[in-house]
Amino acid sequence: MTVTTPAGFRAAGVTAGLKPSGRSDLALVVNDGPLAVAAGVFTTNRVVAAPVVWSRTAVADGVARAVVLNSGGANACTGPEGFADTHRTAEHLAAALGIDSQDVLVCSTGLIGERLPMEKLLAGIDAAVAAVADRSTDGGDAAAAAIMTTDTVAKTVHVPGPDASDDATGPAWSVGGMAKGAGMLAPGLATMLVVLTTDAVVDAERADAALRGATRRTFDRVDSDGCMSTNDTVLLLASGASGVTPGAGELEAALELACAKLARALVADAEGASHDIAVTVRNASSEDAAVAVARAVTRSNLFKAAIFGNDPNWGRVLAAAGTVPESVAPYDPLTLDVSINGVQVCRAGGVGEDRTLVDLAGAREVRVELDLHAGDAEATVWTNDLTHDYVHENSAYST
Amino acid sequence: MTVTTPAGFRAAGVTAGLKPSGRSDLALVVNDGPLAVAAGVFTTNRVVAAPVVWSRTAVADGVARAVVLNSGGANACTGPEGFADTHRTAEHLAAALGIDSQDVLVCSTGLIGERLPMEKLLAGIDAAVAAVADRSTDGGDAAAAAIMTTDTVAKTVHVPGPDASDDATGPAWSVGGMAKGAGMLAPGLATMLVVLTTDAVVDAERADAALRGATRRTFDRVDSDGCMSTNDTVLLLASGASGVTPGAGELEAALELACAKLARALVADAEGASHDIAVTVRNASSEDAAVAVARAVTRSNLFKAAIFGNDPNWGRVLAAAGTVPESVAPYDPLTLDVSINGVQVCRAGGVGEDRTLVDLAGAREVRVELDLHAGDAEATVWTNDLTHDYVHENSAYST
Repeated sequence: MTVTTPAGFRAAGVTAGLKPSGRSDLALVVNDGPLAVAAGVFTTNRVVAAPVVWSRTAVADGVARAVVLNSGGANACTGPEGFADTHRTAEHLAAALGIDSQDVLVCSTGLIGERLPMEKLLAGIDAAVAAVADRSTDGGDAAAAAIMTTDTVAKTVHVPGPDASDDATGPAWSVGGMAKGAGMLAPGLATMLVVLTTDAVVDAERADAALRGATRRTFDRVDSDGCMSTNDTVLLLASGASGVTPGAGELEAALELACAKLARALVADAEGASHDIAVTVRNASSEDAAVAVARAVTRSNLFKAAIFGNDPNWGRVLAAAGTVPESVAPYDPLTLDVSINGVQVCRAGGVGEDRTLVDLAGAREVRVELDLHAGDAEATVWTNDLTHDYVHENSAYST
Repeated sequence: MTVTTPAGFRAAGVTAGLKPSGRSDLALVVNDGPLAVAAGVFTTNRVVAAPVVWSRTAVADGVARAVVLNSGGANACTGPEGFADTHRTAEHLAAALGIDSQDVLVCSTGLIGERLPMEKLLAGIDAAVAAVADRSTDGGDAAAAAIMTTDTVAKTVHVPGPDASDDATGPAWSVGGMAKGAGMLAPGLATMLVVLTTDAVVDAERADAALRGATRRTFDRVDSDGCMSTNDTVLLLASGASGVTPGAGELEAALELACAKLARALVADAEGASHDIAVTVRNASSEDAAVAVARAVTRSNLFKAAIFGNDPNWGRVLAAAGTVPESVAPYDPLTLDVSINGVQVCRAGGVGEDRTLVDLAGAREVRVELDLHAGDAEATVWTNDLTHDYVHENSAYST
């Protein structure tokens, strides 16, 4: 149940030898059509990796026929030579598949500031092309495994469209997907690479709007450590192989659900985390205000360290909320209520129920709810606790 | 060499019993005049502790005769009752000293969301008043010790004014100070309480301008963990006891130097840090742009964790810089240079000198220099690395 579950897609994951670990590190997804519709959302970081520069341009016409993704190297901060490497990657795959290089999208993830070993990578592409030529094997799961870096599990998703109403054959189309990412998750995306596929009939404009809407409410509301990657990419490929055009809102709903499931899986696998934390801000003056306050809480190292210590330290929630300017999120600090896992530990800006009633030690999931009493908008941002393992993993990553 | 070194000040530090540890926890600084000039800078957090609400108002007229500071409890998020506690604290001290309660400033630090044990605190004030009545003892160091929370050392400073030019008696006036703070350091101040004293002759307007200028370039450029406290307070008291009015810029320079030394001491004592990190941004289009980029780097958990691992991971410096909008800090990502402890590891946005030439293992201090090639402005922001001990200390703090 992955990128190859919708009709019209083939995929492979192979070992090109980019990773010291010897694990698989190169993935390929091919859209066999009949449509070759594509959309992409990329990091908003001003320092972007070469593959982002390439793919942003290549997808701008709404057409793509293949995506090649490598782990084992981000190809970021590698100068003009790094861009030439990405260009060569696209040309090589295009030649092997007999398509235009402008219809090839490229994604990379791994260490910043190091060139990719191109001979290994190009040989890996040949191996991946050979693998997808063998139609007896479904390479969807292998592709999802090949894009992992510090991920502990491969992340895939499949969301069927609504059942066809006039017969019992089940959904006519679906959305599949795969993602990698286990840290550096931040708004404007994360070090996350995501490929979504659908066999629905959709044009480029609808694909782009649907992908942006879904991303804004899912991946953009995951904030593992406040750090924004140079490589974040979310791609949607549509083959049209089902022959069915989804009704109004149907593709959008399925896509958002697929993105939500993958985003949740990213949080659950965040580097070194022991708790998944959902910060929900209610009764804000606007959705943007709710997101801003929730984001401030999810970015507080002190709050996140407290949760690691199973300490329902609501004072740190308030201190973080207080850093959001009134122009962004109007509220009266003396009316704020906070509940943690259902216990209202803060009432009207002061002490509420006994904090010892909150038992965090036994719960992976922590639900923080902050009521602003300033309107009726609401948003949830997900993060993780700040742990010894996070520090360890991120201090040892490049060594 | 502390708050009592300038003439006209008395201080004390006593044990009121607010801290479970039994260490001293209540400090008093009295300005004997002849002037009673005061200025204050406070947290910009919208969620502020009761003593901040009180002191902000009390200092607005530029007059104060005493400051009482307690550790062992922040009196934040304690509602109207918490404000009544602060009010009562000021009234009690004012009565004991025979002054107006509006001339008493109050500072608190410690856990958020708990009421202070007022009977103990008021008895502590009586003890402190008795201590300052004994003029044979200099309580400056005792006061600095009594405001410590997770600080490992008391932080004091003394900066003499310029030598008088017409005799050999040395400086006619000076600036003294004390500070507490060892975490939650952030712009718009930190969980830091600072009291500065001077025996220079200065009016309220000059004191306020000098304090704001000094704070902006010192305490506001320390960012230990990006978290902003509810209690931050920096106070300046001027006694005028030297009878000397400093020349243009002289008081301002001495005050800024005193603040810079205390800010540096706060970084050096930050919770669980193993490296002090100075991020200097050069050739920015404006000082604000330089500060914004430097601050983005000092707030990157990934960068800070890398430094803990003695990894000169310059890619994380660029990734952090790239999160600053172009409207705030214009620069071309392909021209960025980064050096770490003098080794230019990144040149023109790509790989520079061999990163293994940077030896961080033996250095407490790490100097990161980022050249934007976009102007001639410069700024430095200080932070610390993100360590196991930071996580431990901040997860265990309230338990």
